[in-house]
Amino acid sequence: MSEFRQDPLSRRWVIVGSDRAARPNEFVELPVARQPIPCPFCAGNEHETPEEVRRYVLPGASGWQVRVVPNKYPAVDVQQACPGCLPLGSSLGSPVPGFGRHEVIIESPRHLASFSELSDAETELVFRAYRDRLLALKSEGRYAYVQIFKNAGPAAGASLEHIHSQLLALPAVPEVVAQELASSAEHFAKSKKSLVQSIIENEIAAGERIVAQTGNCVAFCPFASRFPYEVWIAPAAHLARFELASDSLLAEVAQLVSQVIRRIESATSGGPYNYFLHTQPFTGAKDEHYHWHLEILPRVTKVAGFEWSTGCFINPCPPEAAAAQLRSA
Amino acid sequence: MSEFRQDPLSRRWVIVGSDRAARPNEFVELPVARQPIPCPFCAGNEHETPEEVRRYVLPGASGWQVRVVPNKYPAVDVQQACPGCLPLGSSLGSPVPGFGRHEVIIESPRHLASFSELSDAETELVFRAYRDRLLALKSEGRYAYVQIFKNAGPAAGASLEHIHSQLLALPAVPEVVAQELASSAEHFAKSKKSLVQSIIENEIAAGERIVAQTGNCVAFCPFASRFPYEVWIAPAAHLARFELASDSLLAEVAQLVSQVIRRIESATSGGPYNYFLHTQPFTGAKDEHYHWHLEILPRVTKVAGFEWSTGCFINPCPPEAAAAQLRSA
Repeated sequence: MSEFRQDPLSRRWVIVGSDRAARPNEFVELPVARQPIPCPFCAGNEHETPEEVRRYVLPGASGWQVRVVPNKYPAVDVQQACPGCLPLGSSLGSPVPGFGRHEVIIESPRHLASFSELSDAETELVFRAYRDRLLALKSEGRYAYVQIFKNAGPAAGASLEHIHSQLLALPAVPEVVAQELASSAEHFAKSKKSLVQSIIENEIAAGERIVAQTGNCVAFCPFASRFPYEVWIAPAAHLARFELASDSLLAEVAQLVSQVIRRIESATSGGPYNYFLHTQPFTGAKDEHYHWHLEILPRVTKVAGFEWSTGCFINPCPPEAAAAQLRSA
Repeated sequence: MSEFRQDPLSRRWVIVGSDRAARPNEFVELPVARQPIPCPFCAGNEHETPEEVRRYVLPGASGWQVRVVPNKYPAVDVQQACPGCLPLGSSLGSPVPGFGRHEVIIESPRHLASFSELSDAETELVFRAYRDRLLALKSEGRYAYVQIFKNAGPAAGASLEHIHSQLLALPAVPEVVAQELASSAEHFAKSKKSLVQSIIENEIAAGERIVAQTGNCVAFCPFASRFPYEVWIAPAAHLARFELASDSLLAEVAQLVSQVIRRIESATSGGPYNYFLHTQPFTGAKDEHYHWHLEILPRVTKVAGFEWSTGCFINPCPPEAAAAQLRSA
């Protein structure tokens, strides 16, 4: 018996818990093969990337541990004219220059395939790079939002195996973030509390969707999960901007993300996933009711015509069952 | 050089025309293998499906040509309590019973893998089945919307090869359709014209994104295409409800859809795709500014972390180039 559930933050509806997973499948997907190319992200091949923006070195180490470089095949380009803030709701057929920055965060000099293979100190540097890039791009004063994300595995859209994440600095606040800001503002007006904080308090009280907790952070399968084993990670106390996270909070988050990814990989046979950060835009100082969080979307099911046509996802795996499995993984 | 473009109907932003397609890919996807199972959709195996709702026979033929059956693995269930209209914007954590109908339209008694293999008379019956199911489900008075869609190929979410489409009768208007209705209403208030009609007039005047035209219908690559070779098909004259299409319009649409799919398959080496129908909901008689249309989304690129986090799609193939290629395919 399935249920409709609505996510209070994005306002998305999902259909959860149908027995669609039991249906026969006559297609057999073969594992994707890897055709090794000279990896542009490995130590020794630094000349294969555009000139590095920033590097991080572990105490006592000789070479770099994390490198931030411009994307060699960018979706947006800082040489294009800056359109100011995008004219949302503009008229038919007027394009806007693809202004922005597209960078890659190379997460290790070694050719690792999973983020969960990094040591605690190494994961922490990745999250420190996220924070530092947010701060640096914010100080340029010409971006509205920086979207940080990771594609892990070919089914999640990765074209290279070597662990890395990406960011796009954008001239406008993306639609999904704008919707979350609107829901958060509405909730704050009623309750004087951040919506994500209310969600977390509900989850801790209910318990059944909690995956893991640390002193200051919570990982849980959201009530209206789109995908099997979807997990959100957020600080328990209200904090709108990721770039204001302290060193110790960053370390805690990085370790929790790594641990949850290890659990997801175990539950899904090393399954592909995307993760991304949602944080307070640089614009809109009044939106301090927002609450940064990281969403991990395992990509073991297919998105099909129903999802594209309606915006509503069919998720055969109830998040309560997913969380129980992830807790014991 | 890329551009940001906004779709006036859905209000989605896309990034079009970057050189992302040139990036190296070290993953080699092997063709999906088929493990033949006794096909529940082939003539002779009718007992493998739940009891049929409706069948269509071609003049002079002995057996059925199109069958409509309940989905054996439904996402929603008509036995659950009807929630009335879903409480959109409801509070945290209250699920709604998964009430609705989930049906399959089996498009041929023969085991065909592509819709484009059907004859004109056969494609017409499929579209007649769509119209008849819309009319019948509307007359039940307990659904707000019926979403008709097709998943063709495993990468598009199909689990069976035999050509078929599906429908879900839902107690609420889906989010994507609600957004299109809102944009249409706003445009109508200003221009006294259907938004889709204005879009089509613009496309015909510009010409560069037109794929094919018939006496009463137009196929074009939308200005803000999310995917390479995305095509929308709509009647040129305003018509809000698909279920009010005449027999002759249905025949014209069915043939145009079949022709466009043949062109897409040629341009994408038989690539997988989803298509779906957007039409006026059963509720909301005042929304007669809406304009039904069919969207075809070829699935040859991956949806990744940037799309999930922002709602903005990166499409390396400008629709002007896609339309030119489809016209000559």
